[in-house]
Amino acid sequence: VINAGKSQHNEDQACCEVVFVERRPSPRGQLVPGEGGGESGRVRAGVARKHDREGAQQWDVRKGFYFHYWALFDGHAGSGAAIMASKRLHLHICEQLRDLVDILQDPSLPPICLPRDARAGPVELSQVPLAEDDEEVPNDAVPRFHLEKVVSHESLVVGAIENAFKHMDDQIEEERGSQRLSGGCCALAAVYLMGKFYVANAGDSRAIIIRNGEIIPMSREFTPETERQRLQFLAFLRPELLGKEFTHLEFPRRIQPKELGKKMLYRDQNMTGWAYKKIEEEDLKFPLIYGEGKKARVMATIGVTRGLGDHDLKVFGSNIHIKPFLSCLPEVRVYDLTQYEHCPDDVLVLGTDGLWDVTDDKEVAGVVMEVLMSYEPNDPCRYTMVARELVVRSRGVLKERGWRLANDKLGSGDDISVFVIPL
Amino acid sequence: VINAGKSQHNEDQACCEVVFVERRPSPRGQLVPGEGGGESGRVRAGVARKHDREGAQQWDVRKGFYFHYWALFDGHAGSGAAIMASKRLHLHICEQLRDLVDILQDPSLPPICLPRDARAGPVELSQVPLAEDDEEVPNDAVPRFHLEKVVSHESLVVGAIENAFKHMDDQIEEERGSQRLSGGCCALAAVYLMGKFYVANAGDSRAIIIRNGEIIPMSREFTPETERQRLQFLAFLRPELLGKEFTHLEFPRRIQPKELGKKMLYRDQNMTGWAYKKIEEEDLKFPLIYGEGKKARVMATIGVTRGLGDHDLKVFGSNIHIKPFLSCLPEVRVYDLTQYEHCPDDVLVLGTDGLWDVTDDKEVAGVVMEVLMSYEPNDPCRYTMVARELVVRSRGVLKERGWRLANDKLGSGDDISVFVIPL
Repeated sequence: VINAGKSQHNEDQACCEVVFVERRPSPRGQLVPGEGGGESGRVRAGVARKHDREGAQQWDVRKGFYFHYWALFDGHAGSGAAIMASKRLHLHICEQLRDLVDILQDPSLPPICLPRDARAGPVELSQVPLAEDDEEVPNDAVPRFHLEKVVSHESLVVGAIENAFKHMDDQIEEERGSQRLSGGCCALAAVYLMGKFYVANAGDSRAIIIRNGEIIPMSREFTPETERQRLQFLAFLRPELLGKEFTHLEFPRRIQPKELGKKMLYRDQNMTGWAYKKIEEEDLKFPLIYGEGKKARVMATIGVTRGLGDHDLKVFGSNIHIKPFLSCLPEVRVYDLTQYEHCPDDVLVLGTDGLWDVTDDKEVAGVVMEVLMSYEPNDPCRYTMVARELVVRSRGVLKERGWRLANDKLGSGDDISVFVIPL
Repeated sequence: VINAGKSQHNEDQACCEVVFVERRPSPRGQLVPGEGGGESGRVRAGVARKHDREGAQQWDVRKGFYFHYWALFDGHAGSGAAIMASKRLHLHICEQLRDLVDILQDPSLPPICLPRDARAGPVELSQVPLAEDDEEVPNDAVPRFHLEKVVSHESLVVGAIENAFKHMDDQIEEERGSQRLSGGCCALAAVYLMGKFYVANAGDSRAIIIRNGEIIPMSREFTPETERQRLQFLAFLRPELLGKEFTHLEFPRRIQPKELGKKMLYRDQNMTGWAYKKIEEEDLKFPLIYGEGKKARVMATIGVTRGLGDHDLKVFGSNIHIKPFLSCLPEVRVYDLTQYEHCPDDVLVLGTDGLWDVTDDKEVAGVVMEVLMSYEPNDPCRYTMVARELVVRSRGVLKERGWRLANDKLGSGDDISVFVIPL
């Protein structure tokens, strides 16, 4: 359920897709086994059987695989970045995965090094030359060098998603002129691939799993407060980014010029605690990070520190760019579905901050249980009804004194979007 | 119990002290209530009563307070830094706390701003002027500004400990010439103050609480692997620190020149997953972070990323300094003793990596329970006997094939030191 319908302008966008990742065509026009010519390729029966059992789509594992995808994009300063990201991010993830089609379907460890000019896809992995050709390799699982890290399939998918966010952000930058894209957006994406959920979050949206009544956080929020030290560290190393207007130090409130020489509490990029320092001229500048909770801002401008877009964002009335302090990189958490028995009431909930600002984890879990109980376990509507109920409750009801929740607190004035995904 | 006695040279050092934090004398020679003149000062009876009940020392709260202190210093490349830190770090903590004597004993919130020239100590806090003198303040607990952060007493102690580590490191730098100090050290310190334990860790030592059989981690280790992204980020922003010898990228193994043009797995400062990149000339440099587990190194030189000292440490045979990549800042975790009922078997265990490399949390908890059971609960020796047993077991027994543990695995070849502190 996307948006509560409170406003004319909807800056929340969403996407839900099943995406086929097709093995990249072989370079140099080589014919690849199983592609076009009807030759029998290397079918990885293990993978195919696995998906049979789970009732997922059938496909020819020689050509590629599917992933399932859900994502929320919470736009700010316009919906342009959110709309573009909702139409493209899954394609960037697909693009990153295309090089990994064979590697991810091969149960042996991913090769550390691939041969020249080869894309990972069409090469028979057993033919990948060892980096040191004359070294004896008793077993694929044994590292080939004294010091060689073992890299898992899972961490390749994580890397692919991380790089997809980067490419998405680059594309928004490139096309923002011609497409007249404005603003930026937080992005929260869930990818289901080969038995695992990969939940990638850049911003202040939030994902939780509710399993047997237990709440499992699947993301953390990136805000000026949670990322204070990273931002202060960057400002400390690159003071020119602050444009003589800001200080990298944090103070508990604004300092007034008449307070020069007094001692005030501060924190620098290294500290989590507070200490007193004598106020100097430099400290009268505006703090890089200022405010608390939902009011915390980077350079008095933006309240989230990760997401896509915002390439033109500047401090109001100045030429100071904010983008260097923002990161498009998500944190990716992995949930292995095969490790647990799931029942029809176990769900993954994705929500924008419009939900979480007024409804906490426990309340969400309560609504999930309450609504699911009122539908038959095999009724496909029941998950949508949970999402609708979560959105409606967080919006509240319009009364004389504004939109009010059941507990008479103020409802969310923000866009509210929710996915409820059965596990 | 300090060190297993395996080597002639002991690079582990330790300190255990009760430290009195005396209020700093008033500036400008003012007479302070209760100091010298026999005037009746502002006795904070609440604090005094509290310590009566706990059976701790009595003191005149007008003049200061005590803290209890235990610390381990695991030296490397010489014991100089470890010895100096063991003799001085608690004095630096004391020095930082001296400005806070009155503030910490006042139950109202710490003032955000102190008047000119005043040290926090001797000023009657009720006389501290409000930052905005004309604003009405109904209650001390209400923030005086629309945006004013609430800073807790606890976070002032954390800030004091953080700054004490910084000053300790500065002192080692200043005196390393005259004192002929060599090397550096990890530092793990536990401060007990006003009902709370503050556990500060910079390095790869480790602290856990064992309470009613449950294990509560009180620190995390700072190593090239756990701090990879911070170090890569610094190297990315300041490539000159790498001296043309190193690359900020991580690869799973060394790349050979003949592999130019092939694709290899890598991670940059933004990634936790891995992806393939085409190998370029630049990638043939040695990686900033290289190796796994106990063999992971920063610039092929050092295996810990936080601690004191190491100001002269350079990459072997080069002029590249390591210190910019090291941090002297500890992570401070707080444990509130008043929140739980503790029994005589509940302890805080501090250990250097000599212990933790061969004995995991669960084994340590097992030894704690086993040894404590064999002594009367009021026998003061019982905690020392636990520490001794932990050290002896981790050292192992000298057999034909070297020092062996009970399970015939290799014992720790490192210095091993342990504090067992009853809660």
